[in-house]
Amino acid sequence: MSYPVKSYAAHAPTARLGLFEFERRSPRPDDVVIEILYCGICHSDLHNTRNDWGHARYPMVPGHEIIGRVIEVGPEVTRFQPGDPVGVGCMVESCRHCGACGKGWEQYCENGATYTYNHQDPVDGTRTYGGYSEKIVVTERFVLKVPEALDLAGAAPLLCAGITTYSPLRHWQVGAGSRVAIVGLGGLGHMGLKLAKAMGAEVTLFSRTPGKEADARRLGADHIVISTEAAQMAAMAGRFDLIIDTVPYQHDVNPYVPTLASNGTLVMVGYLGPLEDLNTAPLVLNRKALAGSLIGGIAETQDMLDFCAAHGIHSDIELIRIQDINEAYERMLRSDVKYRFVIDMASLKDASSA
Amino acid sequence: MSYPVKSYAAHAPTARLGLFEFERRSPRPDDVVIEILYCGICHSDLHNTRNDWGHARYPMVPGHEIIGRVIEVGPEVTRFQPGDPVGVGCMVESCRHCGACGKGWEQYCENGATYTYNHQDPVDGTRTYGGYSEKIVVTERFVLKVPEALDLAGAAPLLCAGITTYSPLRHWQVGAGSRVAIVGLGGLGHMGLKLAKAMGAEVTLFSRTPGKEADARRLGADHIVISTEAAQMAAMAGRFDLIIDTVPYQHDVNPYVPTLASNGTLVMVGYLGPLEDLNTAPLVLNRKALAGSLIGGIAETQDMLDFCAAHGIHSDIELIRIQDINEAYERMLRSDVKYRFVIDMASLKDASSA
Repeated sequence: MSYPVKSYAAHAPTARLGLFEFERRSPRPDDVVIEILYCGICHSDLHNTRNDWGHARYPMVPGHEIIGRVIEVGPEVTRFQPGDPVGVGCMVESCRHCGACGKGWEQYCENGATYTYNHQDPVDGTRTYGGYSEKIVVTERFVLKVPEALDLAGAAPLLCAGITTYSPLRHWQVGAGSRVAIVGLGGLGHMGLKLAKAMGAEVTLFSRTPGKEADARRLGADHIVISTEAAQMAAMAGRFDLIIDTVPYQHDVNPYVPTLASNGTLVMVGYLGPLEDLNTAPLVLNRKALAGSLIGGIAETQDMLDFCAAHGIHSDIELIRIQDINEAYERMLRSDVKYRFVIDMASLKDASSA
Repeated sequence: MSYPVKSYAAHAPTARLGLFEFERRSPRPDDVVIEILYCGICHSDLHNTRNDWGHARYPMVPGHEIIGRVIEVGPEVTRFQPGDPVGVGCMVESCRHCGACGKGWEQYCENGATYTYNHQDPVDGTRTYGGYSEKIVVTERFVLKVPEALDLAGAAPLLCAGITTYSPLRHWQVGAGSRVAIVGLGGLGHMGLKLAKAMGAEVTLFSRTPGKEADARRLGADHIVISTEAAQMAAMAGRFDLIIDTVPYQHDVNPYVPTLASNGTLVMVGYLGPLEDLNTAPLVLNRKALAGSLIGGIAETQDMLDFCAAHGIHSDIELIRIQDINEAYERMLRSDVKYRFVIDMASLKDASSA
């Protein structure tokens, strides 16, 4: 039997999201059926639903920061049972046999990972629909255990915003004594501050605008630098081992490069597109690097959830009803959220076709 | 007593290099006095003498690929004695106490390394003059031992072209099974092919023009890819762990990025300046990096010389008389050299003021 579910979907790039009913597949032997309790709203949900990246298929049910409870498992499932709190992030499958998958880098799967929504299930070819829905059915391998210590609503954004900042912090081996800077204080940036601080780093926030000092310090920043102030930037010369740039639109990264120490790396996690006139001179003269990073692998995502539980880390969230999703998108466009919207999926029970 | 020496110097950005006489300092307790036998000609000699980088001081005696024999040592020198074959590269001093120097990264010295020419001696404030001269006086710490197995003339370019490609190969941990590509077949590129091959890598040359196949294979390339051929480039997708880009002028690196494997790095070693429209998307989507690298530290340079001796590696050179230096510069500008000019400094004995 398959599962009829209610959801919120985009039906066109310019349309408001609205109620959409569809059927989730009958569980395969290795599937976990999850009742969704909370779903975070990621900036990429907005890009995807509005077809900013050019490959939208409608109707599209967004959502890849999913927290729920197991309600049923297939006969081959060994790690989960009904009642378990679980999470699902940006991926629901990968090829499992390429070099990247072998290293636990499913996000870099050489044959292409299967994304949680607006993608195609590799087994039956059906469309994947995301977390703005009542239930989801996912192969056990891509389901995360949610430690009991985590608040379920505040844990939802960890599945994308959390792992997107955690993975580069781990990959570039941040620890006690590291000097880390975060560019931008949004959903990704606020997680970057919390995670880097918990790893023992000395943490600096680069912000374009004053007034975020108190909040940044509460989130973990030891220093706040206004990136438009030349004197403040000059004082940071040669300082950082790692800079995580979370800014999601085109911007000039050249001013940040001189603040890297020799051998330091600036990692872009928010912006996909051309950079204007990146100057290679400071890269060459001090062996610096400009890199990118995408979410994280499944084992690494589990590590991140366990790390957050051990350190009492959640996302700062604003809980909304799904009926308010379109207004939340507009506010997100204005950066008017501290720091992540999360949908209380109980609200979907009240939704009816208008 | 100080040493009067003959040299060839540039006296203005547009003038031909000509004979110049000056005095080398009397050796300090830790100094090694070296009779120069061979000096390689680096592309940066041309940039510096023509003031392309804007900080030329004249007269300028270029040359930082220096091979010679010790003729005298100060009383505190312990590692060298008269008769020893030695080398001097791009640096003759650094602060010795910053974090970078402590890691053996004198080239990234936080207080600024002292370059072999067109720079200022930190002790007495005098101008540094390079290797297009009869003798040079250098503190022991910046003098390299030249293993007996090395041909002295063919070893000269190792001090810059060799270490510039060796250092990134080591830093990014190239070894057996690594897939390495070299962009450009010049002085740096031909050393990159030899060194990467000797480290056990599978080596590919990216070249813009056909006709270099036989030479590239002789130098160590397993594959040659014509970078202007879209089909050849597409066949390289996701292949390389490390790409060393030796091209010394502005060029588009975007076509090379897709040929990197996940987690791969493209290292610029030849070009200092702005890049047009670097696309961050492939960096983010596969955790790739664009980095830079500058020569190498002193201990690493010694490692490189020892490695070259163990593997029978020299630069392919064309030996010239110093009287032909200006013609050599013109030919270098046309890439008409296989693959490095080296000056036989014995020719300087015949030089007289015209």
